[in-house]
Amino acid sequence: MVSEIENKVRSAKKSSVKLASIDTDTKNRALEAMAEALDIHRSFIIQENSKDQEDAKKLMEEGKLSKALVERLKVDNNKIDGMIEGIKDVIQLNDPVGDTLNSIELDEGLELYQVSCPIGVIGVIFESRPDVVPQVMSLCLKSGNATIFKGGSEASHSNRAIFDVLTDAIKHTETVPEDAFQLMETREEVMDVLKQDQYIDLLIPRGSNTFVKFIQDNTRIPVLGHSDGICHAFVDSKANLDTAYDVCYDSKVQYPAVCNAIETLLVHTDIADDFLPYMADMYNKAGVKLCCDEESYEILENLDTINEIYRATEEDWRTEYNDLILSIKVVDSIDNAVDHINNYGSHHTDVIITNDKDNKKLFSSLVDSSSVMIDASTRFADGFRYGKGAEVGISTNKIHARGPVGMEGLVIYKYILIGNGQKVDDYTGQNARKFTHNNLDKRYRDVL
Amino acid sequence: MVSEIENKVRSAKKSSVKLASIDTDTKNRALEAMAEALDIHRSFIIQENSKDQEDAKKLMEEGKLSKALVERLKVDNNKIDGMIEGIKDVIQLNDPVGDTLNSIELDEGLELYQVSCPIGVIGVIFESRPDVVPQVMSLCLKSGNATIFKGGSEASHSNRAIFDVLTDAIKHTETVPEDAFQLMETREEVMDVLKQDQYIDLLIPRGSNTFVKFIQDNTRIPVLGHSDGICHAFVDSKANLDTAYDVCYDSKVQYPAVCNAIETLLVHTDIADDFLPYMADMYNKAGVKLCCDEESYEILENLDTINEIYRATEEDWRTEYNDLILSIKVVDSIDNAVDHINNYGSHHTDVIITNDKDNKKLFSSLVDSSSVMIDASTRFADGFRYGKGAEVGISTNKIHARGPVGMEGLVIYKYILIGNGQKVDDYTGQNARKFTHNNLDKRYRDVL
Repeated sequence: MVSEIENKVRSAKKSSVKLASIDTDTKNRALEAMAEALDIHRSFIIQENSKDQEDAKKLMEEGKLSKALVERLKVDNNKIDGMIEGIKDVIQLNDPVGDTLNSIELDEGLELYQVSCPIGVIGVIFESRPDVVPQVMSLCLKSGNATIFKGGSEASHSNRAIFDVLTDAIKHTETVPEDAFQLMETREEVMDVLKQDQYIDLLIPRGSNTFVKFIQDNTRIPVLGHSDGICHAFVDSKANLDTAYDVCYDSKVQYPAVCNAIETLLVHTDIADDFLPYMADMYNKAGVKLCCDEESYEILENLDTINEIYRATEEDWRTEYNDLILSIKVVDSIDNAVDHINNYGSHHTDVIITNDKDNKKLFSSLVDSSSVMIDASTRFADGFRYGKGAEVGISTNKIHARGPVGMEGLVIYKYILIGNGQKVDDYTGQNARKFTHNNLDKRYRDVL
Repeated sequence: MVSEIENKVRSAKKSSVKLASIDTDTKNRALEAMAEALDIHRSFIIQENSKDQEDAKKLMEEGKLSKALVERLKVDNNKIDGMIEGIKDVIQLNDPVGDTLNSIELDEGLELYQVSCPIGVIGVIFESRPDVVPQVMSLCLKSGNATIFKGGSEASHSNRAIFDVLTDAIKHTETVPEDAFQLMETREEVMDVLKQDQYIDLLIPRGSNTFVKFIQDNTRIPVLGHSDGICHAFVDSKANLDTAYDVCYDSKVQYPAVCNAIETLLVHTDIADDFLPYMADMYNKAGVKLCCDEESYEILENLDTINEIYRATEEDWRTEYNDLILSIKVVDSIDNAVDHINNYGSHHTDVIITNDKDNKKLFSSLVDSSSVMIDASTRFADGFRYGKGAEVGISTNKIHARGPVGMEGLVIYKYILIGNGQKVDDYTGQNARKFTHNNLDKRYRDVL
């Protein structure tokens, strides 16, 4: 017996084939229709969202939902403006499908093209933010991927309303298969989605660390994302101190609740006495609580400018505070800094502050993280700041897409070999024809 | 308690950091030392291999091992020549590490580089071929990846001998950490290797379909490879018949035991009467047994040139024969051919034979396979033929590396942002600085 979810996932898979072959103009027209539909149906969306908000407020009063979560749930005219803006931005982005990544002549008249193509079916599992639906749907449509949406039950009315408005708009274009987009609703279905490795090619989770970790631990489908963001700053003995103050302050204080903020400050012992007191004072004024190792504690404990200073435990080095708390450790070499980062870090984003060219190079080579910063804030690790125009997520995976991921994370490639009857048999054994393996400078789209 | 295997895997992980930063010349010198050592220690390797062969012959006599497997186990001077040649080929390949894939200016003095780097730790699990050790070790060393080898017990003496000779050679270079390469031995350890997702970043299985499937089903580590190779040829109504005979014959007969040979022939109904009789006669002369659907059976059943013709069952469309057996189906449109391929195929390699430009384009766009051939044999889908110089494996994954995979499958990238104290705070809120996002045409290696 085929379950309802399997039916939906199969429909998406089937439609994904057609979606993969649709040209850029057609996709952009569908995106325009989506943006218009959101504008037209504002009051319907806001009305449906108010149902979710009422339910959520009750749960908040019962202590079952946090205020932050209820805030995130809210959809108003400003939020809808943002959704429309987001879709219009995606229209402006280059179509990532159909690019020739490489072309090579195997022999005269036998040409090999490596051409970018959609991945197929993307599963997006997200917590309460309803703005995930238009954002992901527009990116997936532009990159030619079918999509399964599974939102949290708190936003079920809003998600359904937005999803219906968008797919209805797509339906009216009569060129993009609206079956390619499917919304799952009831809470029980998360585990079911995770089991669809036969149909879903990639999962993108959006939510808390615990949520992402749960998904990573319970599926055989590749997951694009990261659970932890334990980022470090290392102030080398050859650091420019003003640069160090700026970068270390911004990396922690500018927005401490996000994954690319630092959790641990490593300081070279030769510079610790000079650097730490003023830095700690800056942090103190911003309300940052400091968890220090033995050596940094000794340097800071008797300063009357510092209010909140504690002794760090082993646990601190592994903790993502996501808050105004920072662990501090003094190290006696760049190697020890690198060891600490590779051992305790989450391979997300780490920064060195140094004027020494060799140390810049060494650090960027040895630190096994998706982004390595040299004299610049870790907070720059972000798809928009990196110029991608959109961010699908930040990945700490070691294969496929790594770091801040734009639409390039939603495409893969296929090889297309164009011949005129060539047989492998002619290229084997005695008197075998030789391959030329000449680089072609040709684009597949100019050939077929 | 830390198991022996965890110790080995941790050592590899630790050494992988150093290995990632070693320059090309140093890596090539280690490779030269490996090639020399194989040459010097030929008799030792052959002597150790003879122990495995004796054991294997006993098992063969008891019916526990196939003759083919015992054959594959044999290492003689020719095989060692091949191993040495293989390492020398890898020396000639470009170092895939340290390439600048993209560079962009975020703002004046704030430059982002996307630089290729090793994946980290590769786990290679293989059945009885001892030549996997030098081949994979040389590719992993050149691409800067630490490697865990887990070979079959049948080849335990040979694998150990070759592994020791190679790591000893590396040790003497005193520049490449020989800890980066680790050999597991006893049979029980396969499951243990599959559990090391904390340390192993990518698994490459080498062996039968069942073996690869077992690995895919029992690990959370990404697996580069494919289990099935159900490839198709589709002869369109607008095919050139001579091209169709050549391509369909070569795709099946040239080497039927491999994954890129076709298992199913799809023929457009408009051309079936013209095409099938002569094609079937060619197959018949080569000893190919034909499993036909109703329509093709009717066309072929009364031809006295055809000996072996059977009625196909549903099971046939899902079967990888790896042998001189071919299933044949008549379809009434290119859409039905594509549906059949996407539904029953293994997304490996499929070919269309047609003179129609639109159908070439349609087929290559709609068929969801890692290689799509147009008027050329499926047997070309191979790393060497594709000009990669080496083949790590053929992947049917939808992320990372797809199709025949060379060393590009052993690298990923990191982002390196070089600044001089920039803070995100300056790029946010009122009066925010604007990002320039100008393309840089600079290479990271020219900067640091």
